[in-house]
Amino acid sequence: MANLERRAWASMIELALAEDLLGGDVTTAATVPLHAQARATLLAKASGVISGLEAAREVFAQVDPGLEFVTLVADGDIVPAMTPIAHVSGNARSILAGERLALNLLQRLSGVATVTARYVAEVEGTKARVVDTRKTTPGLRVLEKAAVRDGGGHNHRFGLGDGVLIKDNHLAAVGGPDRVRDAVRAARVAAPHTLRIEVEVTTLPELAEALDAGADIVMLDNMSVDDMREAVTLTQGRALLEASGGVNLTTIREIAATGVDLISVGALTHSAPALDISLDFDLAPAG
Amino acid sequence: MANLERRAWASMIELALAEDLLGGDVTTAATVPLHAQARATLLAKASGVISGLEAAREVFAQVDPGLEFVTLVADGDIVPAMTPIAHVSGNARSILAGERLALNLLQRLSGVATVTARYVAEVEGTKARVVDTRKTTPGLRVLEKAAVRDGGGHNHRFGLGDGVLIKDNHLAAVGGPDRVRDAVRAARVAAPHTLRIEVEVTTLPELAEALDAGADIVMLDNMSVDDMREAVTLTQGRALLEASGGVNLTTIREIAATGVDLISVGALTHSAPALDISLDFDLAPAG
Amino acid sequence: MANLERRAWASMIELALAEDLLGGDVTTAATVPLHAQARATLLAKASGVISGLEAAREVFAQVDPGLEFVTLVADGDIVPAMTPIAHVSGNARSILAGERLALNLLQRLSGVATVTARYVAEVEGTKARVVDTRKTTPGLRVLEKAAVRDGGGHNHRFGLGDGVLIKDNHLAAVGGPDRVRDAVRAARVAAPHTLRIEVEVTTLPELAEALDAGADIVMLDNMSVDDMREAVTLTQGRALLEASGGVNLTTIREIAATGVDLISVGALTHSAPALDISLDFDLAPAG
Amino acid sequence: MANLERRAWASMIELALAEDLLGGDVTTAATVPLHAQARATLLAKASGVISGLEAAREVFAQVDPGLEFVTLVADGDIVPAMTPIAHVSGNARSILAGERLALNLLQRLSGVATVTARYVAEVEGTKARVVDTRKTTPGLRVLEKAAVRDGGGHNHRFGLGDGVLIKDNHLAAVGGPDRVRDAVRAARVAAPHTLRIEVEVTTLPELAEALDAGADIVMLDNMSVDDMREAVTLTQGRALLEASGGVNLTTIREIAATGVDLISVGALTHSAPALDISLDFDLAPAG
Amino acid sequence: MANLERRAWASMIELALAEDLLGGDVTTAATVPLHAQARATLLAKASGVISGLEAAREVFAQVDPGLEFVTLVADGDIVPAMTPIAHVSGNARSILAGERLALNLLQRLSGVATVTARYVAEVEGTKARVVDTRKTTPGLRVLEKAAVRDGGGHNHRFGLGDGVLIKDNHLAAVGGPDRVRDAVRAARVAAPHTLRIEVEVTTLPELAEALDAGADIVMLDNMSVDDMREAVTLTQGRALLEASGGVNLTTIREIAATGVDLISVGALTHSAPALDISLDFDLAPAG
Amino acid sequence: MANLERRAWASMIELALAEDLLGGDVTTAATVPLHAQARATLLAKASGVISGLEAAREVFAQVDPGLEFVTLVADGDIVPAMTPIAHVSGNARSILAGERLALNLLQRLSGVATVTARYVAEVEGTKARVVDTRKTTPGLRVLEKAAVRDGGGHNHRFGLGDGVLIKDNHLAAVGGPDRVRDAVRAARVAAPHTLRIEVEVTTLPELAEALDAGADIVMLDNMSVDDMREAVTLTQGRALLEASGGVNLTTIREIAATGVDLISVGALTHSAPALDISLDFDLAPAG
Repeated sequence: MANLERRAWASMIELALAEDLLGGDVTTAATVPLHAQARATLLAKASGVISGLEAAREVFAQVDPGLEFVTLVADGDIVPAMTPIAHVSGNARSILAGERLALNLLQRLSGVATVTARYVAEVEGTKARVVDTRKTTPGLRVLEKAAVRDGGGHNHRFGLGDGVLIKDNHLAAVGGPDRVRDAVRAARVAAPHTLRIEVEVTTLPELAEALDAGADIVMLDNMSVDDMREAVTLTQGRALLEASGGVNLTTIREIAATGVDLISVGALTHSAPALDISLDFDLAPAG
Repeated sequence: MANLERRAWASMIELALAEDLLGGDVTTAATVPLHAQARATLLAKASGVISGLEAAREVFAQVDPGLEFVTLVADGDIVPAMTPIAHVSGNARSILAGERLALNLLQRLSGVATVTARYVAEVEGTKARVVDTRKTTPGLRVLEKAAVRDGGGHNHRFGLGDGVLIKDNHLAAVGGPDRVRDAVRAARVAAPHTLRIEVEVTTLPELAEALDAGADIVMLDNMSVDDMREAVTLTQGRALLEASGGVNLTTIREIAATGVDLISVGALTHSAPALDISLDFDLAPAG
Repeated sequence: MANLERRAWASMIELALAEDLLGGDVTTAATVPLHAQARATLLAKASGVISGLEAAREVFAQVDPGLEFVTLVADGDIVPAMTPIAHVSGNARSILAGERLALNLLQRLSGVATVTARYVAEVEGTKARVVDTRKTTPGLRVLEKAAVRDGGGHNHRFGLGDGVLIKDNHLAAVGGPDRVRDAVRAARVAAPHTLRIEVEVTTLPELAEALDAGADIVMLDNMSVDDMREAVTLTQGRALLEASGGVNLTTIREIAATGVDLISVGALTHSAPALDISLDFDLAPAG
Repeated sequence: MANLERRAWASMIELALAEDLLGGDVTTAATVPLHAQARATLLAKASGVISGLEAAREVFAQVDPGLEFVTLVADGDIVPAMTPIAHVSGNARSILAGERLALNLLQRLSGVATVTARYVAEVEGTKARVVDTRKTTPGLRVLEKAAVRDGGGHNHRFGLGDGVLIKDNHLAAVGGPDRVRDAVRAARVAAPHTLRIEVEVTTLPELAEALDAGADIVMLDNMSVDDMREAVTLTQGRALLEASGGVNLTTIREIAATGVDLISVGALTHSAPALDISLDFDLAPAG
Repeated sequence: MANLERRAWASMIELALAEDLLGGDVTTAATVPLHAQARATLLAKASGVISGLEAAREVFAQVDPGLEFVTLVADGDIVPAMTPIAHVSGNARSILAGERLALNLLQRLSGVATVTARYVAEVEGTKARVVDTRKTTPGLRVLEKAAVRDGGGHNHRFGLGDGVLIKDNHLAAVGGPDRVRDAVRAARVAAPHTLRIEVEVTTLPELAEALDAGADIVMLDNMSVDDMREAVTLTQGRALLEASGGVNLTTIREIAATGVDLISVGALTHSAPALDISLDFDLAPAG
Repeated sequence: MANLERRAWASMIELALAEDLLGGDVTTAATVPLHAQARATLLAKASGVISGLEAAREVFAQVDPGLEFVTLVADGDIVPAMTPIAHVSGNARSILAGERLALNLLQRLSGVATVTARYVAEVEGTKARVVDTRKTTPGLRVLEKAAVRDGGGHNHRFGLGDGVLIKDNHLAAVGGPDRVRDAVRAARVAAPHTLRIEVEVTTLPELAEALDAGADIVMLDNMSVDDMREAVTLTQGRALLEASGGVNLTTIREIAATGVDLISVGALTHSAPALDISLDFDLAPAG
């Protein structure tokens, strides 16, 4: 439900509008009449998966609650190039004030959804889920995680509080020869019982140790495809296996074919190029 | 001066830390001793231009003022792959809590600086400046504009209040046959005298009209290279000329060679891939 | 690590200080000299488990960073009546300004820890964990969950994002005869793989359905002790069992004896009486 | 007027919603259809005095302005067990998102009102007013003070700025043999003339000194009932007398009978058990 | 457009309402019935230029969205004494809660507009614009700059980011004999190309140096009228000239007559006396 | 104590710095070296009473905690023209960034203190106190009330929550012939017992009614001096009398001579001209 999610990014949008508008909009004040009315179309100029329409709606609503924002497609829709995706109408100055931020969000989020869809298409027919990481844009995590879902991907934990993931730096803290085992057990005692225990391993012996300690999920970090295949055999469904590291559009199909359950891809959010979207503006007679 | 700039992004960092940490860090709480001390190295795994060190410092300072953050290179430095760029030391849990956000910022900002440096290298020897746009990540504008400077680029206006830029949507509001002239004149009367007047044109006749009206800067929007060359001849230094649209690493050299003063590139900020940077962690004896 | 947790309640403390201090402190301004120095002792007047010392430290630090706050016991310590638990010294006006809020927090949180310890003592020797709920004081959840741990209890999920708990109202949404099964399966598909799936049941047939659907945790809501015993037998360790409803100090021992894994108690946080703590003040010579 | 009061607690509710919802609501997202509509009833399961309905309304409004919230009783109403007190209807996910916080507030505030009503009933027929203290839940002072009024009690000062109350720690600052007199006089000179001067005394000679110095209100701190009776005789209406300390439901009647004007009771707010209130949910056909 | 500008001062109004209302309104709560309805008139008791009506509207909207606020004149209108300028109607308590802040804003802003109009009247017939400075009331800059425009004045730069103005303290940093020239050149290289370069000079040789370096605007600081006249002759339109320092209603006409383009006057905002405006209140029958 | 008061205006200063600095400081960035060190002197160019030094300190501390701010006089000191009042030293860019806001605050607050001192001087030898009103600058109330005290005046209530003041608009709500009496009695029942009851009257019969009803303070609104003298006789010390309306430097002496206890003057805060203060800057060798 939009209103619920909205709580998480409304402050970010406030902050971002302040960047653009604290000093007012001197150009518009000088050239556009105070009460001029307009209608504009948001246009996807390239093909891709749309995401961020609710964020764009929020931008215009914060700038001017009197603006009307009507979506023509839904988040998650795949659109061909030159598809109108929304109309915004009302006071012309208000539309111009919100234009840049609305586009910046739509372009970035649709970029994330579009890249995700490409990865998801690659694993079709395998049982692997494409999942995101915490390598998101600061302040946009909720929106980018939704964009990943819009592109057909799944989400990993949201933050450090809703998933136990024991990584190399944590293992260093436990030391000793049985460090994977000790860390998993420590987590089982101390972490809330509502969370599964995931541990990162880099070798098959470590995997064995993790399984032995009762890990619920094991992350295979930068393992070769052969090792991953071996890992799947060795695990026999006792834990979920997550492939991580070195994943790109060329390698993901082969990785998925090993039988892992999850493939996490940082590039879904940290390097997705923007989808080209513009706002085209027709000035109606002044209201 | 760091403290001054800091005011602009401290709230964004607060917001972004909340994303990651509102529910605490259950893994670390379960596996890393409360008073464990550590030292970690931030390592640039790929070559590029570093940017965002002060933002990373702020992240760690907000998480725990007791952490020590020491930079080994400066923002704007070009580094080869596998260069250590900073050390952070202190409470191990605190370092782990700040790790992801510090990396997310450094990777993105160094990505922007690195891409910018490539564009700047292409125009070397011409008089053209590479400038950014307002197509920045929501909430990160100050940091990304600094990253553009770190990469050797220049900044366009910061927001809608510190530059007059009359675009097609504004011209639509003026209507009539002399719309460029009328808009420039309206801006001259109404805008603060401290700002130059820039107007976007798409044809040479519009350029002539803009010069005639006394525009200080003219943006040549999506013009052919031939038209841009003609524009430079026609203008004879009466205004600054800014090329915009269709600029990429393949085309920028030719555009610069036309003699324009400025070339604005949205991709500096909206599509720069992250630079690969990691945090490597050595656990010291508990303090 | 204190600094990390602190992020979660510093704003609440700011808000609460504003309640008390927005109009200044007219009494102190009129009667206590501007530069008077003082030392005060926080004294537990009743026996109990102390919690909230770091919150009290934050209160005084926000009022005046120049105050020195020294703890004499640690959070989680069981103290007899009339035990000094901390000293605060520095500007006398500042101490008086922070006194009430520091005490309000310490009294409430130590009350929670003390009540929790009583419940935990009752289940000693059984395998049952005493866990809290989301029935916490608005704004104080992080602190009250820590108080539960200080009293020897464990935490259930922090918020709605870090645990799947399917309750009667969710089941109503699925409808149909196999609603427990359908809901658990829906959650398995849609929820992040890092979270366990918990479902609330009120009858043994529903428990069977939940186990069949692969629930990780089953909450036995308001079941009779006999039914709970039967539930333990029926489950055979395939899922964690959580007793909920009608738990008090009289009933908890019998419930724990059934062999359930977890017993959740709302009263730990929603009805714990305050522990009596005072601040006693000796005025030193003005500095 | 609700809108006016609302200003004081809207931020607290924002903070508290963030605790519960920052990571979204994974259970509801997985099991309740996006557009499912529902109607729910808030039900007082125990008898008591209701308080907090406007706070609950605000919770649901912040979660989703589209929810309709209809009260069936008013704040301050005494209701028997199993009384429906409000309906909330609209999007099912939104209702579930606000449920816990709305209940936490209603349960706590109705608990305060209910306890207050018991104290007020005990003093019926005497001239004594039951008044609250500053021992309120951090962040909830405005709401808890309203709950005290809903239970028939009166409010003492709101914060440190709207009442002069000279306590032992202030007296320590004045020192000397005439410290009560000196402190009252100092306050008379320095405090705004709009405020009455109250001073805390523990003995009858101190009371005499306070009256002599022109105190407007005298707090009799932990005095015996006999001394309080003597204090009333001695004062002869020259000041208001407030009994404080050792007040409970057993002792308050006798205290009131001494003829004191005010009896302040910290337990009204610091130790009131929650009133049992639930939200029962009927799923309507999807909208 | 009001909604756009509003973003800049809504937080200030929130802060200012908190000053007045955090402890509620005890007088109104005691004397005005909860549901009493009223209509009030805002009355300009002295003649002047009105400014701040949108800020007053925001005050009442924040206090109670149910209030109706109807303006009878527009910002910038010149009104005779005893002119009704707006009506506000709705809940009587709400009107009383917003009254003082609405008046404080209207009185101050209309004071600024009225003083500005007097300065503007003095320069009528000359080409000089009266411009403001950054000597505004902290937190009210956007509103006071609008008030200057309402009075017929023009705005100088809004903040330090939207105008280059090199003053004596900057020149001190450049040192050397050609310091004006060096500073202007440094600014030309480093500042965004969208901004004009202004430099402050105190002598005619410095003016020559500034013109020579290509300054766009030169501020003549505390120059004699004779020197200013000479400056105009010397400049021959190569730069805008701004007179600054020692400007008052007695001197401004003579200064304008020298032919300078701009005259900046700090007193427009830092010392304008309030315009007398009251709120008169008629109580309607309770709703 | 500075730290305590500071809480009330730190947010206002944050907001005001944002006005000036959100877009950075382009002039300083272009002309002042990054690490240049400087020392500057704040200089009172006119004689007056200084106020606002702690606010200025806070401005510089927020801009750059590394700046050193040393006061040479204290708030409340009367200084002759050309008195240095403080030094600030450290990073030159930081000093320039804070300069304007620090001056804006010092000039305004010293203006308030200076005007107050003039009023206070006029009533010397009478028993009347000069008190302020709520006609303060939005956001600056705490600071302006302190400035009034620095000038020798006293404060009236801070906001609507810490004083009962029944004015004409409240009386309108009570209606009937005994409206003053009824309103005072209503307030006595409903308002916290810690507050005195003040009522505004315009005639001597209303004064009699107010005294009869037991008002603690009576405001004589716009009464003639003769009527005020009569009011003093009539009251015989049964209530404090406050003169209000039509008070200026010409009339206040005569008003004070009537024997009233308090004279409230809105002009102390709403129309005080700024005191001329400058910041003079010497650039030291770069650090």
